[in-house]
Amino acid sequence: MRDPRRIIARYCIESAIPPERAAEILAGEQSSGTFVRVPGETQELHERHGARIIDVRTLGETTPSLPSRSAPQMVTAAEIEVEFPMENVGSDLATALTAVAGNLFELEQLFACRLQSLVLPEEFIASHPGARFGTAGTRRLIGAGPGAMVGTIIKPNIGLREDAFRSIVKDLALASIDLIKDDELMTDPSYLPLETRVRIAAEEIDSAAQVTGRRTMYAFNITGDIAGLRRRHDLVVAAGGTCVMLTVPVMGIPALEYLRSFSEVPIHGHRGGLAASMRHPGLGISYVAWQQLARLAGADHLHVGGLGSKFYETDDEVAANIRALLTPLGTGEQVTPALSSAQNVFSPHPTWAAVQSSDLLMLAGGGIAAHPGGPARGVASLREAWEAAQAGVSLADAAREHPPLAEAVAAFSRSA
Amino acid sequence: MRDPRRIIARYCIESAIPPERAAEILAGEQSSGTFVRVPGETQELHERHGARIIDVRTLGETTPSLPSRSAPQMVTAAEIEVEFPMENVGSDLATALTAVAGNLFELEQLFACRLQSLVLPEEFIASHPGARFGTAGTRRLIGAGPGAMVGTIIKPNIGLREDAFRSIVKDLALASIDLIKDDELMTDPSYLPLETRVRIAAEEIDSAAQVTGRRTMYAFNITGDIAGLRRRHDLVVAAGGTCVMLTVPVMGIPALEYLRSFSEVPIHGHRGGLAASMRHPGLGISYVAWQQLARLAGADHLHVGGLGSKFYETDDEVAANIRALLTPLGTGEQVTPALSSAQNVFSPHPTWAAVQSSDLLMLAGGGIAAHPGGPARGVASLREAWEAAQAGVSLADAAREHPPLAEAVAAFSRSA
Repeated sequence: MRDPRRIIARYCIESAIPPERAAEILAGEQSSGTFVRVPGETQELHERHGARIIDVRTLGETTPSLPSRSAPQMVTAAEIEVEFPMENVGSDLATALTAVAGNLFELEQLFACRLQSLVLPEEFIASHPGARFGTAGTRRLIGAGPGAMVGTIIKPNIGLREDAFRSIVKDLALASIDLIKDDELMTDPSYLPLETRVRIAAEEIDSAAQVTGRRTMYAFNITGDIAGLRRRHDLVVAAGGTCVMLTVPVMGIPALEYLRSFSEVPIHGHRGGLAASMRHPGLGISYVAWQQLARLAGADHLHVGGLGSKFYETDDEVAANIRALLTPLGTGEQVTPALSSAQNVFSPHPTWAAVQSSDLLMLAGGGIAAHPGGPARGVASLREAWEAAQAGVSLADAAREHPPLAEAVAAFSRSA
Repeated sequence: MRDPRRIIARYCIESAIPPERAAEILAGEQSSGTFVRVPGETQELHERHGARIIDVRTLGETTPSLPSRSAPQMVTAAEIEVEFPMENVGSDLATALTAVAGNLFELEQLFACRLQSLVLPEEFIASHPGARFGTAGTRRLIGAGPGAMVGTIIKPNIGLREDAFRSIVKDLALASIDLIKDDELMTDPSYLPLETRVRIAAEEIDSAAQVTGRRTMYAFNITGDIAGLRRRHDLVVAAGGTCVMLTVPVMGIPALEYLRSFSEVPIHGHRGGLAASMRHPGLGISYVAWQQLARLAGADHLHVGGLGSKFYETDDEVAANIRALLTPLGTGEQVTPALSSAQNVFSPHPTWAAVQSSDLLMLAGGGIAAHPGGPARGVASLREAWEAAQAGVSLADAAREHPPLAEAVAAFSRSA
C-alpha cells in the first residue's frame, strides 16, 4: 500500500557505482542523509524523514551523459523511484521543488539525473487552489463558445511604436480573434511602456467588441521585478484588461503562485527558458513533472510548444505533454494548453488526432497576419480547420465549403 | 568600438545548417526577428532593436549534443557572439534573462545552445545596487577580522526537534563559528517552524556571544512562498537574526531582487537546483554568466561548490567560478563565495593556491562536528589551516604548532 502522504518521484540516473548505491546517495542528499549517518540522526528521525528507494530498475551500460569530476568510460543507467515524506516539505511548492529537483543534479556520482515523473499526495495537491479561471473562465471572459481558441502574438515582437501597435491590435480585435499576446521579450520598455500598451489595447478591444460581439483577450506580459508585479497587474485590471502573462521559468514557480494569490484575471504562463533545464534527456526535469507544479501554482494557460513547431520536441512529445496538461489535477479549473510556433490551418487535424480535445489555445502568427484575405479571414480559416478536424472532415473537403480555409490552404500549403 | 549600451552574450551552439545561419535564427528569435521579416518590421526598427551577430567561430564537426525534431548524424559546433540592444530590455533583470537565456534553448535548429559568458553594459550594472553587505558587512556583523570565515550546516539537515536543535546551535556558537546555516531542505516545517528556530538560535547565539565575543551569524532559510517572504524576513530581523538564506534557482532571480529590496540583513544565496540548467556543457547557462545576475539581484553570499567537493565540477572549474565571483561588478559590496561540500583542513591550501583570496566563507560539516576535540577545536583547526595557507606554511609544519590542526589532520587524513 502506498503511503498517501509521500511524494513519489521517478528519475533516470547513470552511475559508475551500483544503481542501488547511487539511489541511496540521491535519497540521502535530498532528505535526512541516509548515506553518511551523522550524530543526532536517530533511527526514529531516519525512518520518519528519510527518503525511501522503492524501485531500482537497471537499464544497462552506456557512456556517461554528463561530465563530472571523474570520467568513467562506461556507467550504468537505471530508473529509480524515490518516496519523499510530505512532512519534509509541508505544502510549500518551493520546498517541494528543492526536494525533488534541487541539489541532486550536481552530485558527482551521477552521470545523468532526470526527474521523469512526479506523483504528489492528494493532501499536497488540495492545499493549492490551482487555476482560478482555466479554460472555462477564459471562454467566459472572451464570450467564446466551445472549440479551440485562436490567438496570436504581436509582431514585430519588439520595437513597435504606439501607432503601429494600435493598428495591429485594431486589425486583430476586429478579426474577432480570441487572444492576443505580447511576446515574452516585450515587458515594459521605455519606447512602448506597459501602461501605454494597456491603454491602447483596451481602447481598440472595446471598440472592436461593439462590432464583433467577442471580447478579445489580451495577455499583457507583466514579467519583471516582483516589487512591481502587483502594480502592473492592477494597471491591466483597472483598464479592463482580462489577462496577464508571466514567463514562468524566468520568474520562478513561487512568483507564479504569488501572482495567483491576487490576480483578478487569467494568468497566461509562458515557458521561455524552460528548455535550459529540460531539453537534455539526462538532466533536469520533464515537462510532465514540471507542469504539475506550474498548474498548482495557478497558471490558467500554459505554453506547451506545438505539433509541427520550430521547437525541439517531437510531435509525440508535444502530444504527450498536452495530454498531461489535460489530465485532471486537484480542484482547480482545467488549464488551457497554449500551442505555439508554426501553427496554421494544417495543425488542427494532427493535433486533434493526437489529443482528441479542443480545449486548447492555438497561437498562430503568419497563418493570421499573412492570410491573403486579411486577419479576419485568417482567424476564420483556423476555426474552420478546427471544426473540420473535430467533425472528421478532411481539410480538402472542408476547404471546398469554406473560402477562408481554401485561401489559407492554398497560401500556406506545406509543399510550398 | 563597442556600443556601450549593448549586452554581449557568447554562446556555444551546434547546428546542421551553417553556423552563421543558425546564429541569425538565434538572434532573430531573441530580438526583432532578423530571420523572417514580418509586415511592420521596418529597416529602422530592425537596426535599432535587432540583435547583431558580431562573431562566429566554427569549431568543427561533432555528433549532436541535444535531441531535436530531426536527428542529423553530424552537426557543426561554433562559438558565436551576439549583441543585444539594452533598449530592448531596459534595466530589468527578468527581461535581460528572457533575452539572453529564454526561448533560444528550444530552437529545433540548434543541437547545443549554451550561454558561456555575458558582458553587461555599465548602465545596466549601475541600475542595480548589488550586495548591500557583502564580505565587509558580513565580517562587521559577526565581529570577524580578515581571513576566511568558517561556517557549517545544521546536521541532521531535517527532522530535528527543538531540544536537539538547541543543543547543536549552542555547541556551534560556543565554538565561535562565524556562520551556521539551515540546509536548503529546511524551510518552515510544522515539526520545527522557522519561528521556533529563530527564537532558539537567537537565544543560544546571544548567550554564546557573551562568552566568545563573536556573534555567530545564522543564515535562516526563508525560501518559500513569496507572499510570506517579507514576514519571514521580518521575523528573523525582529529576533536579532543577522542573515537570511534563499535558494536562488528555486525562487528565481526576481525573487532574490525582491528580497534585496527590503532585506535588512545579508542574503545567503544557495544554488540548489542550478545544475539542472548548468551541468550539461551544451545547454543552459554557465556559472560565470549566471553569477553576474545573482550578484546584481543582491546576493551577499553565493554558493559556488568547493575544491575537492562531492559536486560534479572539477577543481579548475570551481576555482574559475570563485575568481568570477571575486571580480568586481558595479558598485555593490564584494559578494562572499560560499564554499561547501567535503571541506576540511585539507581544503585551504589548494583553495588559496587557486584563488589567492581569503574573502571566502568555507562551510565544513564533519570537519567541525566530527573533530575529535569537539566543534571548538574543529573551527580552530580550520582557521589554523587557512592562516598557514596564506602564510605559505605547509599543513604539516602548521600542525606541529597547532594541536587542533594536528588532531584534524590525523582524524581526516585523506589517505584514511
